Amino acid sequence: MERPRHQGMPKNTSMRWRLPLVCLLWEVAMIVLFGVFVRFGAEADAHWEEEKREMNLTSDIENDFYFRYPSFQDVHVMIFVGFGFLMTFLKRYGFGAVGFNFLLAAFGIQWAILMQGWFHSFKDGKILIGVENLINADFCVGSVCIAFGAILGKTSPIQLLVMTLFQVTLFSVNEYILLNLLHVKDAGGSMTIHTFGAYFGLTVTRVLYRPNLEQSKDKQGSVYHSDLFAMIGTLYLWMYWPSFNSAISDHGDAQHRSAINTYCSLAACVLTTMAFSSMLQKKGKLDMVHIQNATLAGGVAVGTSAEMMLTPYGSLIVGSISGIVSTVGYVYFTPFLESRLHIQDTCGIHNLHAMPGLIGGIVGAITAAAATEDVYGKEGFIKAFDFTGAYQTRTPSIQGGFQAAGIVVSLLMAFAGGAIVGGILKLPIWGDAAAENCFEDDVYWEVPEDEESDVYHMHNPDKPASP
Amino acid sequence: MERPRHQGMPKNTSMRWRLPLVCLLWEVAMIVLFGVFVRFGAEADAHWEEEKREMNLTSDIENDFYFRYPSFQDVHVMIFVGFGFLMTFLKRYGFGAVGFNFLLAAFGIQWAILMQGWFHSFKDGKILIGVENLINADFCVGSVCIAFGAILGKTSPIQLLVMTLFQVTLFSVNEYILLNLLHVKDAGGSMTIHTFGAYFGLTVTRVLYRPNLEQSKDKQGSVYHSDLFAMIGTLYLWMYWPSFNSAISDHGDAQHRSAINTYCSLAACVLTTMAFSSMLQKKGKLDMVHIQNATLAGGVAVGTSAEMMLTPYGSLIVGSISGIVSTVGYVYFTPFLESRLHIQDTCGIHNLHAMPGLIGGIVGAITAAAATEDVYGKEGFIKAFDFTGAYQTRTPSIQGGFQAAGIVVSLLMAFAGGAIVGGILKLPIWGDAAAENCFEDDVYWEVPEDEESDVYHMHNPDKPASP
Amino acid sequence: MERPRHQGMPKNTSMRWRLPLVCLLWEVAMIVLFGVFVRFGAEADAHWEEEKREMNLTSDIENDFYFRYPSFQDVHVMIFVGFGFLMTFLKRYGFGAVGFNFLLAAFGIQWAILMQGWFHSFKDGKILIGVENLINADFCVGSVCIAFGAILGKTSPIQLLVMTLFQVTLFSVNEYILLNLLHVKDAGGSMTIHTFGAYFGLTVTRVLYRPNLEQSKDKQGSVYHSDLFAMIGTLYLWMYWPSFNSAISDHGDAQHRSAINTYCSLAACVLTTMAFSSMLQKKGKLDMVHIQNATLAGGVAVGTSAEMMLTPYGSLIVGSISGIVSTVGYVYFTPFLESRLHIQDTCGIHNLHAMPGLIGGIVGAITAAAATEDVYGKEGFIKAFDFTGAYQTRTPSIQGGFQAAGIVVSLLMAFAGGAIVGGILKLPIWGDAAAENCFEDDVYWEVPEDEESDVYHMHNPDKPASP
Repeated sequence: MERPRHQGMPKNTSMRWRLPLVCLLWEVAMIVLFGVFVRFGAEADAHWEEEKREMNLTSDIENDFYFRYPSFQDVHVMIFVGFGFLMTFLKRYGFGAVGFNFLLAAFGIQWAILMQGWFHSFKDGKILIGVENLINADFCVGSVCIAFGAILGKTSPIQLLVMTLFQVTLFSVNEYILLNLLHVKDAGGSMTIHTFGAYFGLTVTRVLYRPNLEQSKDKQGSVYHSDLFAMIGTLYLWMYWPSFNSAISDHGDAQHRSAINTYCSLAACVLTTMAFSSMLQKKGKLDMVHIQNATLAGGVAVGTSAEMMLTPYGSLIVGSISGIVSTVGYVYFTPFLESRLHIQDTCGIHNLHAMPGLIGGIVGAITAAAATEDVYGKEGFIKAFDFTGAYQTRTPSIQGGFQAAGIVVSLLMAFAGGAIVGGILKLPIWGDAAAENCFEDDVYWEVPEDEESDVYHMHNPDKPASP
Repeated sequence: MERPRHQGMPKNTSMRWRLPLVCLLWEVAMIVLFGVFVRFGAEADAHWEEEKREMNLTSDIENDFYFRYPSFQDVHVMIFVGFGFLMTFLKRYGFGAVGFNFLLAAFGIQWAILMQGWFHSFKDGKILIGVENLINADFCVGSVCIAFGAILGKTSPIQLLVMTLFQVTLFSVNEYILLNLLHVKDAGGSMTIHTFGAYFGLTVTRVLYRPNLEQSKDKQGSVYHSDLFAMIGTLYLWMYWPSFNSAISDHGDAQHRSAINTYCSLAACVLTTMAFSSMLQKKGKLDMVHIQNATLAGGVAVGTSAEMMLTPYGSLIVGSISGIVSTVGYVYFTPFLESRLHIQDTCGIHNLHAMPGLIGGIVGAITAAAATEDVYGKEGFIKAFDFTGAYQTRTPSIQGGFQAAGIVVSLLMAFAGGAIVGGILKLPIWGDAAAENCFEDDVYWEVPEDEESDVYHMHNPDKPASP
Repeated sequence: MERPRHQGMPKNTSMRWRLPLVCLLWEVAMIVLFGVFVRFGAEADAHWEEEKREMNLTSDIENDFYFRYPSFQDVHVMIFVGFGFLMTFLKRYGFGAVGFNFLLAAFGIQWAILMQGWFHSFKDGKILIGVENLINADFCVGSVCIAFGAILGKTSPIQLLVMTLFQVTLFSVNEYILLNLLHVKDAGGSMTIHTFGAYFGLTVTRVLYRPNLEQSKDKQGSVYHSDLFAMIGTLYLWMYWPSFNSAISDHGDAQHRSAINTYCSLAACVLTTMAFSSMLQKKGKLDMVHIQNATLAGGVAVGTSAEMMLTPYGSLIVGSISGIVSTVGYVYFTPFLESRLHIQDTCGIHNLHAMPGLIGGIVGAITAAAATEDVYGKEGFIKAFDFTGAYQTRTPSIQGGFQAAGIVVSLLMAFAGGAIVGGILKLPIWGDAAAENCFEDDVYWEVPEDEESDVYHMHNPDKPASP
């Protein structure tokens, strides 16, 4: 079932025509589609003065820009620096980690503005955008960055762009089903971003299984400074996660509450991660892989419930559990997934996004089901779950059921979508590297010749010895 | 008086059971205490709609979240990336610097929310929290990060957690005495955060004096790239310090003014630091230690007075002086403190936080004493110093006296607290490393085997030669 | 015409008295001038309570601080971390890149507050400052950081300070001519910051032409980790550019629109940069130089027009083109400029700032000329171009003409100013290094002795071999 690998016969990994072709064609398509469809929303349009009068707003500060722009910038940092640098831990794949993440995210946000716009911001034939669309586009691309973590080092940039195109599309469909058809709450995206993104990526990497990957085993580790670069990514994700989970919550108390819950959950998660990281090693030494990743599980696991009345201690409990689950995952599940299920998960997204995402979905369902007018207040209750219009009669327990259904739908979309997209990426036309050249920047990047690099030379006969 | 060191007999530094036990026990304690005490404040609670009506607020933008959240995120970055990376300058202690700072801060903010909450946000048996509590918790932990700088590389993670527990407690008591009993203004924490934190840390490191530390002298320096990592910390502290000093100031002009004063002070500080760094070296070359640290003294030194009418030129003066004092401190005081007073101050916090903190307290006292209704306006005067209720009759000169008293109290708390906590940390049960293994990540971390690492091998007989 | 270089006779590069003298003298001058001129503006002054009543403001949130402070902090990060780390790509000039950028920016913002204040915020003999002045000072210094990119590695810190003094002065004059006399719109500074800054720097580096620079050719490259450090700078510039272009736009829709246009332009720019980077290399490999720089051209190129109704697809077009132009520039123009025109442009600012800046100016002129009341709305039209008072009768096409004139004025100021300042910097009193010691931190910095450093030893006979 797997593609045979002929060692010694180098694969054609040259991107010279394929990558420019794909990038330019797609950018032209974006320009055309934006030209036909995308316009400024009322709050970003020069007609805003009139709009303000109509809506009886007395101050420019009521523009949504001021409610959401600081959070948007934090989310933006998470996508580009957070995910980008988190993946630089590999000793010779830092350019690919930061650079390809940059490429796929920059393309993905354009396509996401269109896809999500058609579903959510379409009015009179036009997609009307504002700062919330930018945040949602970043969110959508976040799910692609997650999936990228599973296949990091094993794919060509073209494969990543193809995957981004399909995954953004599927993300938007899944998101529409959850938010609009099931009327599910998922402000921080435990289901739509993390569960969907992670299981999608895991399915793709399963389909792309490389039996000879141990040939590049020596390059799958880190070096001292690459681990420090990765900590830049970790910390920015960790610090800005309260902005992530609160960025598109309702104005006022909901944004405020989301930030507090996430802050608490993440703080607790660090302690349980450190505890289990030390406990599960023979000599009790801490492992940077856990610190870089499992400390973030607390943010994932309150993604759905952060804007609900989870309460600070509820957040501590969720954060504590997710740190434990995630660390245990790195120690026991990742090797198991690789050896038994042939799922090669470079960054361990199963531990950081998949399992905590599921926890997040479940916690969200429980928190919703347990909601009462007493806890939320009469108005707050209706506002928090948007029990208006067609949903006026929905009860908390029914909402909890729909939330649970959202998890299942996300999983199904991820598995089905991942299988199809994995199949497409398996076509032998995308220029991915041979197994012995995985995790090596030299395949797709001009790499400077430092002294160190001697040691990591790829098996490339036409490369001269360094001077 | 000092613990004898038996070279050759390695100490038991294994964290395998001790660290997990401490982390998990404390996290459980946090969950229980949060469960009993902590609830959302009015602005983060789902009842906010009703609150809004009661308070006659017409817009969600009046929620304190929008006044303070951007500053909160900046402060958050300072604590985790700023302090964390500032301390990565050591060639082989980057994991410990970033990782232990992460651990102690994540634990500290939970405990600080409780401690500060009992003192300042306690109502009907509950601590009601909002974004301001998160900022204050970060502030409180900032003082622990400062103290960590003095003992960097010489303690086990358990010692750090024990120190955090006690220091957060003492910080909160000291803060309560200053802000509530003495009615002192200290928005940027020159006294409560910097003076207290630094002298506390210096006292602890004095008690923990290691006579044989020259055994790890080769590891106390930096390498080229570790100095660049440290500059990430420096710059984030420098850039976001205006947010630090303005984060909890009164809404409106006070926040605005604090940011401007801090911006000015820091800009001036860079120039005098560069000047003295060059002047005090034989060959006139700049020293990265000064650039990484003394450039920040300007932020510390306007901590108390930034929200007052210090004026931009006043800020330039304070910043200029503090840069000079701090740089001179690195060149002359630090060696003196070590050789004569047996104070081993790894990061030189005496120069960056202790002395500039004292300057900040004094400048604050003078600025307060010099305040007039003419300069502040009648209403502004009362608002700036909160001369209402019991303090209605306080005059500027009396306020100046109380400000000065605040410095003294902070110093006493720091010395007494540091001595006691130092004594506790001296107990031979915490798993700290032998003198020859200080400043070496290998003791508590799984460290990847890069080629470079050969050179830095610790004196650990059971470690195999790298392949 | 060029200064003769006597190889073997080391130049006197000691900064021991010259640098401190310049720094301290200038800081004293700043203190005096700030003391005479600078005071808090109404929104940062303690009299704000009275001001609020006069202006009929009901809430502190109306303070300009809350409209602009988050953007200010993003801009601040761009200047210090963005530009600073972008230039760390050189293997042995990281300290100089980050450190000298820090120095010149910290000095420049003080002088800029004065210069811009006299032109724009002068009232009753005082310069009244607020958060907008801080942003403008950062902007002004941005143009110096750009020019620094052209001469990176070839000048002493004193030369940089001298250049900063003059360039800030000329910037402020040019800005005054454009904004006040020509009534040109340029919120993101395509003309005032990028075109002016880049051509100024290119002229300076032309005057300072070093014929023997190939002697330090081996140090003009990067190493693996220095390229990753540079990506930190790149990403922060890229992510925060929407804040840069919107930071001083009008409140409300204009800020909102600027951010969206810039976001779109930058996203498109990444794709065309990647496409051309791969296409223009023989083996189709991506070049980090392009990714680090050309991806940012999209932000420069919408600097003038971002706050206009450029529309999202217009932004995509501008971003796409600028990415192509910039990448082609790195491959073909930079070598041409060096070999034929003797312009040694270390960072390639011609490709990142000069050409995209010109594009930005032209796009701005066209977008302004094409404006209609239909697109902007009657009020929006007047507000967007400030067609009030003396400019009441200006038509879009006339505005377009003035915009174009703004480009020409900026170019003339840059060439004339750069020639004069270059001439001053050529005086043999500033302590710049010999050609063979360029791009080497060891000249002006205490550099730690890592093993690696052996390889990069500068030609300095009095330096002992490393131990």
